[in-house]
Amino acid sequence: MKIYNNPPVKDWGKIAKRPVFETEVIEERVKPVLKKVKDYGDIALKEFTLNFDGVEIDSFEVTDSEKENAASLISDELKQSIDIARANIEKFHQSQRSHFEVIETTPGVKCWQKNIPIQKVGLYIPGGTAPLFSTVLMLAIPAVIAGCEEIILCSPPNKEGRIHPAIIYSASLVGVTRIFKVGGAQAIAALGYGTESIPKTYKIFGPGNQYVTAAKQLLSKDGIAIDLPAGPSEVLVVADKTTNIEFAAADLLSQAEHGVDSQVILLTNNMDVLYDIQSAMNKQLAVLPRKEIAEKAIANSKAIVFEDFKESVDFINEYAPEHLIISTKNFEEYSANIVNAGSVFLGYYTPESAGDYASGTNHTLPTNGYAKAFSGVNLDAFVKKVTFQQISKEGLKNIGEAIQVMAENESLHAHKNAVTLRLNDVK
Amino acid sequence: MKIYNNPPVKDWGKIAKRPVFETEVIEERVKPVLKKVKDYGDIALKEFTLNFDGVEIDSFEVTDSEKENAASLISDELKQSIDIARANIEKFHQSQRSHFEVIETTPGVKCWQKNIPIQKVGLYIPGGTAPLFSTVLMLAIPAVIAGCEEIILCSPPNKEGRIHPAIIYSASLVGVTRIFKVGGAQAIAALGYGTESIPKTYKIFGPGNQYVTAAKQLLSKDGIAIDLPAGPSEVLVVADKTTNIEFAAADLLSQAEHGVDSQVILLTNNMDVLYDIQSAMNKQLAVLPRKEIAEKAIANSKAIVFEDFKESVDFINEYAPEHLIISTKNFEEYSANIVNAGSVFLGYYTPESAGDYASGTNHTLPTNGYAKAFSGVNLDAFVKKVTFQQISKEGLKNIGEAIQVMAENESLHAHKNAVTLRLNDVK
Repeated sequence: MKIYNNPPVKDWGKIAKRPVFETEVIEERVKPVLKKVKDYGDIALKEFTLNFDGVEIDSFEVTDSEKENAASLISDELKQSIDIARANIEKFHQSQRSHFEVIETTPGVKCWQKNIPIQKVGLYIPGGTAPLFSTVLMLAIPAVIAGCEEIILCSPPNKEGRIHPAIIYSASLVGVTRIFKVGGAQAIAALGYGTESIPKTYKIFGPGNQYVTAAKQLLSKDGIAIDLPAGPSEVLVVADKTTNIEFAAADLLSQAEHGVDSQVILLTNNMDVLYDIQSAMNKQLAVLPRKEIAEKAIANSKAIVFEDFKESVDFINEYAPEHLIISTKNFEEYSANIVNAGSVFLGYYTPESAGDYASGTNHTLPTNGYAKAFSGVNLDAFVKKVTFQQISKEGLKNIGEAIQVMAENESLHAHKNAVTLRLNDVK
Repeated sequence: MKIYNNPPVKDWGKIAKRPVFETEVIEERVKPVLKKVKDYGDIALKEFTLNFDGVEIDSFEVTDSEKENAASLISDELKQSIDIARANIEKFHQSQRSHFEVIETTPGVKCWQKNIPIQKVGLYIPGGTAPLFSTVLMLAIPAVIAGCEEIILCSPPNKEGRIHPAIIYSASLVGVTRIFKVGGAQAIAALGYGTESIPKTYKIFGPGNQYVTAAKQLLSKDGIAIDLPAGPSEVLVVADKTTNIEFAAADLLSQAEHGVDSQVILLTNNMDVLYDIQSAMNKQLAVLPRKEIAEKAIANSKAIVFEDFKESVDFINEYAPEHLIISTKNFEEYSANIVNAGSVFLGYYTPESAGDYASGTNHTLPTNGYAKAFSGVNLDAFVKKVTFQQISKEGLKNIGEAIQVMAENESLHAHKNAVTLRLNDVK
């Protein structure tokens, strides 16, 4: 860990800086993939799946019998755990429902905002050795609660042409409409443009490697909505003398094991606490299966001492961490002052793992400082708010003059005329 | 107007297609502007302002005396009209406030979502012959209600180095923090990167020409949030035998006068109504000051007859218009079935102009079919929703086992360990 002792404000920008990735090369490799899927549909998907995933796929869609089988292929223990997580995620996201109210802004002028689900959404779940079924829950549950009509999930097939049963099980359980065995940039293209097999969707969610990220970014230039700009996962842990050293070390490591580019920051007001946590990390690290990954991430991590509480809070808000764990006695004092963070974990018994899996909050969160302007995925991410208005004759009499004057001053005479004609009619 | 009589579904995609602009050439011209502002700050802004706006600016910020003067330079009539609009916009956007509630998803597991204003927002208001003070109201009022700390407005100076007093007056009135005389892509760069004079902001709002649009798009690749992807303004008017022909014609023209690329669509179930509206448009057009612009937009416009109600609704949802005016007796039947639109205007006395200026709804709306996935600007656009959670010992006992099982099944052992250590502690 690189240690900073009471760094001056002028250095904060540099300390808070995330790694910058050269995206242009990746984009140039992704563009022809997108174009080919757009132009040739399923034929292109088959070719890319053979080349990139090393498997020939005849029919992309996961069948009903595959779905039925999935349940028998995973343990009862996992099923029960998924049920607990599902119930909590449902409860929390259901609480985010908002209801519209008709507002009479002026007598006779009624305005309201209606939450309408995005009809078709695409969810991408990466492949790899570990099946990210938790992300299936995090994306599909709010989509179902929002009322999205078509929830299309894509995930890459393994060499045997299969998707991990835990992904299929979770998706079927919570109400994903259709599941397809396609991965990478070609899956994102299919969700954005549609093919013979895969329906076009209006908004694409989910994590992925740099090709997936580039594909989402390129599609968003075409007006297809995406959940969030992507970046490596991050945690900032706040610790002091009241903190349980082992817990804090475990929290830092649980971020570090994600990948070598994981961003791990320890913030404390006490140098002894810093050293103690460092040494606890080294001990815990020794027995981790993903030791090598975590070790590299830790080598790039930062430990910062701020003796001053206000400086400490200001730095957190400048850094805007994806995950913020405040593992101190005075966590309430901190949390009241936090304005930039993705998700905040308060107190000694609130590890990030809880929010990653089962407490109910979403784990799809803004990284890379984007928490300054972006929310994590929540129920709102699956709805649009459409405004409606209805004006009576009386209402138009009340605001018609103002509209005419304003339109005239903006030199928009046809705008004015649309009111003038109506006012003449109601006189 | 190009007329389509009961077009089959297979043709809808083509009819609903918007003009496609070649953005690459523009982007290549904008990139060096962004880079120069990023590298050289105010010096670059001065150079670009001299080159593009033809005026030398020493100090970009609008002074207090300019603000005080502005009020005396616009008519009392306009001030009163702005007051009426402001009150309605405030009332409607204040009603969009949502309050968080602490949810106990499982005993001992408390989760909540807090609305936190984006600290620094940038508003861009284009120059030109007509001052878009209405857009100042639409962007600044919700920013103030949300509680944004810094609301920075940029607008290009005219040849005399001034911003129109109606813009300055409106901005000061509603609480814009600082106003700067900078326009074009260089203004967007300044709001995104910050310069010596102009503070960096986290989200940039507002309309503009293709250079401004390209600059916003490019900055959004760097993770700076923007309000909406841009496109030419649009209206779809629904008319039948109950519709007032003159009103419908005026509504179509009020869209057409925006620009030659304005998208204007008339949808009706009756060919006679279509012809009547066309002829009314021709008559009204003759006396419009912006006749030439409107004429060109109308030449590219479309009139569609659908005898079938359901087809009519389905087409609207496929087109996803920015503005939808339903000027028929059965507007409620329509509006209940609308899922894709930016803002919907119901009944005979609800012209789009009302929502453009003074009814209270926002006029910054998704164009180009983006209403399928995007909301217009509303209070939410100025806040982030940050999740918090606090878990007690009891709470961790309740969900700890599920977290451990899920983490293990995703091969994330450090995630599991962060829970195991805590569970051992509370046993």
